[in-house]
Amino acid sequence: MRTLHTSLQTYFTTHEQEHLEQLGEFLRIPSISTLVLHRKDMIKASDWLVEALTRVGLEHVKQIVTSGSPFVYADWLHAPGQPTVLIYGHYDVQPVDPIGLWDSPPFEPTIRADKIYARGTSDDKGQLFMHIKALEALFAIQGTLPINVKFCVEGEEEVGSPGLIQWLTEDQELLSADFVVISDTPLMQQGVPAICYAVRGLCALQIDIKGPKSDLHSGGYGGAVQNPIHALADLISSLHDPTGKIAIEGFYDDVLPVSAKERAQFTPILPPDTYLAAQLEVPELYGEKGYSAIERTWIRPALDVNGIYGGFTGEGTKTIIPSSAHAKISLRLVPNQEPGRIFELIETHLRTHTPAGVTVTTQRVDEGLPYVASLHHPAVQAAKRAYQEAYQVEPTYIRMGGSIPIVSTFAERLHTPIVLMGFGLPDDNAHAPNEHFHLDHFRKGLLTLALFVDQVANNGSVTSRT
Amino acid sequence: MRTLHTSLQTYFTTHEQEHLEQLGEFLRIPSISTLVLHRKDMIKASDWLVEALTRVGLEHVKQIVTSGSPFVYADWLHAPGQPTVLIYGHYDVQPVDPIGLWDSPPFEPTIRADKIYARGTSDDKGQLFMHIKALEALFAIQGTLPINVKFCVEGEEEVGSPGLIQWLTEDQELLSADFVVISDTPLMQQGVPAICYAVRGLCALQIDIKGPKSDLHSGGYGGAVQNPIHALADLISSLHDPTGKIAIEGFYDDVLPVSAKERAQFTPILPPDTYLAAQLEVPELYGEKGYSAIERTWIRPALDVNGIYGGFTGEGTKTIIPSSAHAKISLRLVPNQEPGRIFELIETHLRTHTPAGVTVTTQRVDEGLPYVASLHHPAVQAAKRAYQEAYQVEPTYIRMGGSIPIVSTFAERLHTPIVLMGFGLPDDNAHAPNEHFHLDHFRKGLLTLALFVDQVANNGSVTSRT
Repeated sequence: MRTLHTSLQTYFTTHEQEHLEQLGEFLRIPSISTLVLHRKDMIKASDWLVEALTRVGLEHVKQIVTSGSPFVYADWLHAPGQPTVLIYGHYDVQPVDPIGLWDSPPFEPTIRADKIYARGTSDDKGQLFMHIKALEALFAIQGTLPINVKFCVEGEEEVGSPGLIQWLTEDQELLSADFVVISDTPLMQQGVPAICYAVRGLCALQIDIKGPKSDLHSGGYGGAVQNPIHALADLISSLHDPTGKIAIEGFYDDVLPVSAKERAQFTPILPPDTYLAAQLEVPELYGEKGYSAIERTWIRPALDVNGIYGGFTGEGTKTIIPSSAHAKISLRLVPNQEPGRIFELIETHLRTHTPAGVTVTTQRVDEGLPYVASLHHPAVQAAKRAYQEAYQVEPTYIRMGGSIPIVSTFAERLHTPIVLMGFGLPDDNAHAPNEHFHLDHFRKGLLTLALFVDQVANNGSVTSRT
Repeated sequence: MRTLHTSLQTYFTTHEQEHLEQLGEFLRIPSISTLVLHRKDMIKASDWLVEALTRVGLEHVKQIVTSGSPFVYADWLHAPGQPTVLIYGHYDVQPVDPIGLWDSPPFEPTIRADKIYARGTSDDKGQLFMHIKALEALFAIQGTLPINVKFCVEGEEEVGSPGLIQWLTEDQELLSADFVVISDTPLMQQGVPAICYAVRGLCALQIDIKGPKSDLHSGGYGGAVQNPIHALADLISSLHDPTGKIAIEGFYDDVLPVSAKERAQFTPILPPDTYLAAQLEVPELYGEKGYSAIERTWIRPALDVNGIYGGFTGEGTKTIIPSSAHAKISLRLVPNQEPGRIFELIETHLRTHTPAGVTVTTQRVDEGLPYVASLHHPAVQAAKRAYQEAYQVEPTYIRMGGSIPIVSTFAERLHTPIVLMGFGLPDDNAHAPNEHFHLDHFRKGLLTLALFVDQVANNGSVTSRT
């Protein structure tokens, strides 16, 4: 292993200039998926990928057209008896507004203080690029790959992956693999590698309260009728109990308890609650008793009203009883909560708690399964060894409070463990001006990903699907 | 009395064409106070009034410039020993948008089906004009007036009467009177005259909840921190108890009970709750137990959230925990509730009920005292007799759920009973396209107002201030 490590290090050092130039080409393409104006750039970026993947030695490289921008597929399947990894990434990027806040133009990659600045450096072109170059290095050093590899690089991640999700619903064969690896998440902190092994699921809904047929003068009618905003406030208030737990009957029934052992592993890596409270500038943190704040986001479900509106919201006053009031609500789910079942429980709760004098309707708007990989899965163990070898630091196992729709979809459709090996940092400005990526993590990431492939090959039990 | 009645009727019939032409001149001036574009029209309308009041025989007619458009003052004070009435009205009108919905142009008075259509016919040029012509008729028939009269006609009613309120704060002498009469409110229904003897007071405030320093990703932080929208919902929910009563400690302490006798008078004139529920298209009415719906708006205080907003309110979803949440709240007060005291009770309630993890600030934005005249006041009795004489129908005594800021101000500054003798109808479209006024009420109104002046003179105890 030391030999491979040294060879890889030499290879990446020797080729760093060339790699950064190639990455620069990729970053210069303004492939903003949400803007129709950039349709041609989406094609340009996927063309660039086809060429890059082909040049490395991958086969069956093709653009697969779905509803919108195509996803790029490639594979190399010449390691019989060895596991197959599906490497997922995305070539689309976020918009660049407000453009005035960028210190250098978003599509002119610039290196300052050992960081590369451009839209997409961290999210996700830079991290995806490292996977390609890790394979290039292995091909160059060993003339082959020790495992089977598939690539799936989509152009719609920033707009909810509609095409890929649709594809996976209809065809599970093309992208089938023993596990999926994604590099699109941040570490907890600089210098400490982290393997994210769980994300929360999601269900999102809209609640609409209907009262009188039109807005009423609150002088003429105040006291006579139910005010839809009051009814909505009562309903929202009824969703939590006074201790901060969710008060929907049956809500926690399917929640898998997390072992004391697993929780004990969190302790050394979690920031203290006081630090978090100061950082967020709140008088105190708040939530379910018995868990630290970050634990509540990692292993416990949560319900949040994301937006509320009703009545007069302009400057000054307008004394009305509004005809309606509205709330957008999303829930984060943990294993084994199932979005469909949760929707039903919420709808029952709302129905049985609807105040007199109004009607309530709900609309389901989004959902995704929670996901957790077993820490004992060989791919997770391989990732751990690769990180340790490359960083010379024991990696931490982390979970994520957020939801990655494509992770839920892979888990649901391919029944495949997913390993989230991110190399970004929380302050990379992934969706903001001056997005950047640390070259230190670029170098360590290349090494980690190449070593990971090698580690997977040296562990025969990866193919045992969990 | 029959003689005067007959003479007045003859006078008004003889002069109806001439009166309608004069009213037409007044209505043609587009005196929209809220639009700077119409500044010159405000002057034009007040000039028109100066001339009209002078022509009738009033004295000391002048425009009094305050902050914005002037108010027009006039008096006739040659009835020693007799009471002084202050007649209040306004010459400004509401905007006319949406102009496309008018069947005839808003500033070209048109008579159709015995109704006169134009902006201001009901609110308030038409009703104000009747007061002027009532005096004209008395002068013509009797050569004098039996009581002392002051006129105050402002041009800022539709924008909150800032100039007049300021004037009344600084000078109570000019407009001092034994009572005030205002014709700017509707009857309950066609053909049944009504004397409005009470309006509710008002206090309005804004509540702002501050949570984390910026919007947070609800995946990353959901469960860790208090959500300002949840905190706001809890606070709003805490403002009422489960029976619909306001749950602010001490809130009802100053509420004057209304006698069973007074309430018994409401019964025959109030629509049944079922009628109101059908009209408003709500499943059921809702509010404090023990009162009918309209009673709750007339004699009980109410608290309404007029608007609420926070977080993401656009199309679709954005999974955030917002940094803040906001509500606009107004309360309707009844005698003897005092807005300043109520503000304090609310602020105390909010302070003691603020959920963990957020801060709450409140901002007082508006206030006005409730007002109720004694039914036994001679001016109210005089109005009753005048209505009965003119309509040949017993007038009803009604209260109003709404608040008229200038009524509160008169009551507070001049310590004067106010009699609201309206002749409009609820469906006159006062603030909407096709505003109109029934000529039947124009004719009966002229007669009522002239007879009212006569009735006041024939009752020696009017000057006894309540």
